[in-house]
Amino acid sequence: MPAKPLALTQGDPAGIGPELTLRAWLERRERAVPAFACIGDPDHLARIAEQLGWTVPLHICDWRSAGAAFADALPVIPLASGAGTVVPGKPDPATAASTIGSIDRAVAAAYAGEAAGIVTNPIAKSVLYKAGFKHPGHTEYLAHLAARGGVAPRPVMMLWCEELAVVPVTIHEPLRRVPELLTTALIVETGRIVAAELRSRFGIARPRLAISGLNPHAGEDGTMGHEDAAIVAPAIAQLRTEGIDAHGPYPADTMFHARARAGYDAALAMYHDQALIPIKTIAFDDGVNVTLGLPFIRTSPDHGTAFDIAGQGIARPDSLCAALKLAARMAERTVTDTAS
Amino acid sequence: MPAKPLALTQGDPAGIGPELTLRAWLERRERAVPAFACIGDPDHLARIAEQLGWTVPLHICDWRSAGAAFADALPVIPLASGAGTVVPGKPDPATAASTIGSIDRAVAAAYAGEAAGIVTNPIAKSVLYKAGFKHPGHTEYLAHLAARGGVAPRPVMMLWCEELAVVPVTIHEPLRRVPELLTTALIVETGRIVAAELRSRFGIARPRLAISGLNPHAGEDGTMGHEDAAIVAPAIAQLRTEGIDAHGPYPADTMFHARARAGYDAALAMYHDQALIPIKTIAFDDGVNVTLGLPFIRTSPDHGTAFDIAGQGIARPDSLCAALKLAARMAERTVTDTAS
Repeated sequence: MPAKPLALTQGDPAGIGPELTLRAWLERRERAVPAFACIGDPDHLARIAEQLGWTVPLHICDWRSAGAAFADALPVIPLASGAGTVVPGKPDPATAASTIGSIDRAVAAAYAGEAAGIVTNPIAKSVLYKAGFKHPGHTEYLAHLAARGGVAPRPVMMLWCEELAVVPVTIHEPLRRVPELLTTALIVETGRIVAAELRSRFGIARPRLAISGLNPHAGEDGTMGHEDAAIVAPAIAQLRTEGIDAHGPYPADTMFHARARAGYDAALAMYHDQALIPIKTIAFDDGVNVTLGLPFIRTSPDHGTAFDIAGQGIARPDSLCAALKLAARMAERTVTDTAS
Repeated sequence: MPAKPLALTQGDPAGIGPELTLRAWLERRERAVPAFACIGDPDHLARIAEQLGWTVPLHICDWRSAGAAFADALPVIPLASGAGTVVPGKPDPATAASTIGSIDRAVAAAYAGEAAGIVTNPIAKSVLYKAGFKHPGHTEYLAHLAARGGVAPRPVMMLWCEELAVVPVTIHEPLRRVPELLTTALIVETGRIVAAELRSRFGIARPRLAISGLNPHAGEDGTMGHEDAAIVAPAIAQLRTEGIDAHGPYPADTMFHARARAGYDAALAMYHDQALIPIKTIAFDDGVNVTLGLPFIRTSPDHGTAFDIAGQGIARPDSLCAALKLAARMAERTVTDTAS
């Protein structure tokens, strides 16, 4: 366990974040959940606990006492939710300032060395947009908060479970746009960030990257597409000249079974489904979303606000607990690279 | 077990087909392999067995005695291999006529009611092309043999394991071509063939088809591509008007975990990797390739000739054994649909 607690944001208060937060604390012993403090509205958390019939003592505190309190109570760094009584399943733009404020304070705590890293509960972009939020998403907002000298770092999304770590090089793009968006430079830049972070935060001295082709059978010598040879292969060559142990392009369909996975530390896939299908097939409940490339540790559960089931107490805390555990593990393994 | 044996083609004699055939017979008891007869060169099979130090008695026979002989010897429907001593790993176009002849005789045996179905060992198209073979591949050749009145049936490739059956609607195409090749008519035609065959050969009275979207998140209301709504959804609506229990379009990444798989009998995916990634992640060794839409049962192992390891006795017979078992199961469950 890291000495410092993790900062857990409240996420959208009308989503499943509050109940998952309560449940992660309730199941802290059997799931070996590391110490965290939730930055949120204690009244709202207490109300959700009461509605669900769950006994969760809250410890309203600052960062100094949060870690020690965790064994006996859920530490809460208090924040007004901004909307009186928020009803689960009914998102309200009046809560947007509080949702964003929770993220701001988590980042500030990480920068100040008060929190070991940040774990974010899900937000609903559409709710925030109605309140004037201008960033494309959660991750981009975190990169914005991490900007120095006006330059934001490029965040890289990695999906992680015990059996597989996989990074989509392009993400939320229509399939037809993927071939035009995929460039050698993008693959190289992504590979560099992944390799650096596996070294600095995952304790892997010489990370092995397996890189997929874009086309079936990785193009099969050009008979099923030219991008594997023209775009992906040069990226792998470039990464190797930089001392990164990158291999491929591999046919994506034969990269993800258990024996193949043993041969690499992270896979780079060229587009969303090529990356997300294998990890969600293997680890649907307890996959974790990790943001690489930020100056602090950030993980999040691999699901959304789930407004349709919020407040019922049926949402599974597996992914949030896995996100908390991975963030703590990354904090333990973080090494300061003198070259960076 | 079906009363009739299965017809197993020899495949390329320089590939792993001969040794897998021998090993499937040797492991027939522990793997519960159904009775089959290999249509091939008995001298070549005997030579491979001798080189590997395996004791496999061959029973050279016709279809009438093959089934009864299987318990004590490997039944072989004899065929000259056409190339004297074929060396494993060294394919020889002089064997092409024999490779093709084995397929022809298997189909003839299935048509004549002598074989319960056909299982094909892997061939190497490039070897056959050098000998003048004109068909795009193994499956297309089988469809050609099944043509009646000059019209060949449209074969549909299904990948099958105990946990998942999945059909790629487009197959060996560059990713960039998939959006233009995908049509509502193609999805409907594929869905009809899958549903009909699940009824007629898999014993599923009302097959449930889960159909993926093309884009991430199935397009997420058009924000990540329009084809899910414009092309896939109308195909599902059409299949449903025909009484087929089709659902979707579903985000492909959340379709293939264990709880999701319990909700359907077969998944239709829009392109190669979307279909092949999940099944090869789950069942790398024992996936089976099933050809639907032919007037006879045809399965094959989900691997190639593997010339690089042929003759060493290290190739795993899991997929061939699974292909034989599935073909026998399909033969048992085949019902004659009076409407067809």
